[in-house]
Amino acid sequence: MPEIKDILLGSQIAGARMIRLIEDNDPVAFEMLKRLYPHAGNAFIIGITGSPGVGKSTLIDALITQFRTLDMKVAVIAVDPTSPFSGGAILGDRLRMQRHAADKKVFIRSMASRGQKGGLSRATKDAVVVLDAMGYEIIIIETVGAGQAEFDIASLAHSIGIVTIPGTGDGIQAIKAGILETGDIFIVNKSDKPDADASCHQLDMMIDMRKPSETNWTARVLKTIAQNQTGVKELADVFLSHFDFMKKNNLIDLKKKEMEKSYFNSLLKDLTLEKLLLFMKESEDCKKAEKKISAGVIDPLSAAELVVNKICVFESND
Amino acid sequence: MPEIKDILLGSQIAGARMIRLIEDNDPVAFEMLKRLYPHAGNAFIIGITGSPGVGKSTLIDALITQFRTLDMKVAVIAVDPTSPFSGGAILGDRLRMQRHAADKKVFIRSMASRGQKGGLSRATKDAVVVLDAMGYEIIIIETVGAGQAEFDIASLAHSIGIVTIPGTGDGIQAIKAGILETGDIFIVNKSDKPDADASCHQLDMMIDMRKPSETNWTARVLKTIAQNQTGVKELADVFLSHFDFMKKNNLIDLKKKEMEKSYFNSLLKDLTLEKLLLFMKESEDCKKAEKKISAGVIDPLSAAELVVNKICVFESND
Repeated sequence: MPEIKDILLGSQIAGARMIRLIEDNDPVAFEMLKRLYPHAGNAFIIGITGSPGVGKSTLIDALITQFRTLDMKVAVIAVDPTSPFSGGAILGDRLRMQRHAADKKVFIRSMASRGQKGGLSRATKDAVVVLDAMGYEIIIIETVGAGQAEFDIASLAHSIGIVTIPGTGDGIQAIKAGILETGDIFIVNKSDKPDADASCHQLDMMIDMRKPSETNWTARVLKTIAQNQTGVKELADVFLSHFDFMKKNNLIDLKKKEMEKSYFNSLLKDLTLEKLLLFMKESEDCKKAEKKISAGVIDPLSAAELVVNKICVFESND
Repeated sequence: MPEIKDILLGSQIAGARMIRLIEDNDPVAFEMLKRLYPHAGNAFIIGITGSPGVGKSTLIDALITQFRTLDMKVAVIAVDPTSPFSGGAILGDRLRMQRHAADKKVFIRSMASRGQKGGLSRATKDAVVVLDAMGYEIIIIETVGAGQAEFDIASLAHSIGIVTIPGTGDGIQAIKAGILETGDIFIVNKSDKPDADASCHQLDMMIDMRKPSETNWTARVLKTIAQNQTGVKELADVFLSHFDFMKKNNLIDLKKKEMEKSYFNSLLKDLTLEKLLLFMKESEDCKKAEKKISAGVIDPLSAAELVVNKICVFESND
């Protein structure tokens, strides 16, 4: 079992074990998170999102290099199942990503949602708390834009970078509308390909058309070629200047409250469901319903409805 | 609003609208599903799973062509966010997949999990019920193997095909252990690449080492080159012979019961959560907790725990 003190000292072994407990929905993880929580809240959390194939992982790999030249401790959480970090890509890619493995100030972890309980957003937030308490100054969350609607990156990160590639505008159209609205920095990667400037122009126009941001931060558009570090130093600088901007304008505290509210809500959902499913398992009605379905007397939809209709819930007064 | 009778007549417009309602968690969808359910249960449901890049979508595209030569009605549900069917790939791929778009006996739909409620497994099962009731004889579910742990393909499909590519065994290692155990047919795609035979051999050995199947079906290993239909006719035949095998050995009914139990459980979870969240929204304790978090008096983890501890649940006797 990992020790709180080792996690706070930044032990990568203890941190990895703790995140494993989180993924396994181990009840110990919850107790430990409560103790780690007061030590978190200092990291700058960056979300990197975009469709598969735009080079998110390569870009993150290049960003790590840049943040390391500033001697910052960097952690990465890959939520994208197709990320080389998650083992979802071909072997060559995966090996390339391991170049930072020997660096004690870099920690890369992929998140998988194990078991039935809890969502990926909640587990990722839990992991962010751990990495933050471990003392990482930069935490990068890699997420695929499409097909992860349930994953709300905006409630997890201070700054959101959206990665796209030059093309017919298809890359931009593929970005979900909601994410477009929340993007702080837009990155046209592989910008040695034709039409990179046209893509930048499209993004600039799109930013102009957005409703004015409450924070007064003007979204930026940058060109990179992550493969050879082109533009990546500038990108790292823009991310850091966004964090500075947030600090100077008292936006960090506002964002923290927003993040905490969202964390509270997903915790509430998870804990409630846990409690209810435990109750369900013991329920006589449930057992009867299963028998009836098996006998073909009732369909699963009607049976579930009947069982749930009989559940009563109330708040106790003590 | 789609009409039950149009869905039962196989109208693709009505079917697409119905699936949209499911994705939107529209309460009408639930009522309609109850009415459609008795008309479902005839389709042969095939799960196709494998890591991104192994050519699942191209293979499914080729399988559609084969099943169509047998004049069978085919539907595809793409759950993989990186699938060209889901719009997660580059434009060229996506266009290629649309060759069957004009065929009235082919229906292709990608599933996205919208909103917070419900899981992807549940929504996919709902969609299968619709397609089944529409009269599709073959329903193919495309799912990515990695990073979708919460998605239980075994409880949705009669037959599971696992797609891999020739290589250093890496492709096989990348397949999740649980899925390996449940695979009925293993497909080495892109088998014109070196080491295809070695991959087949590895898979054969792996199958030999599995614990004997309860159904006595011996898993098969096939080589395909989906791009040019090589081996795809044979693959379609093996899938159909697996379905025949299940019918002859009274396994269909057993599988149906298993599927229904799993469907009931996910419905129970979803409906329970829905009911609880409604209750939570009105809860005084919840509102108080949010204020305390915002004031920094309590952390989100402890606050959620306190609120949930006060919830009482019981079954009514009427």
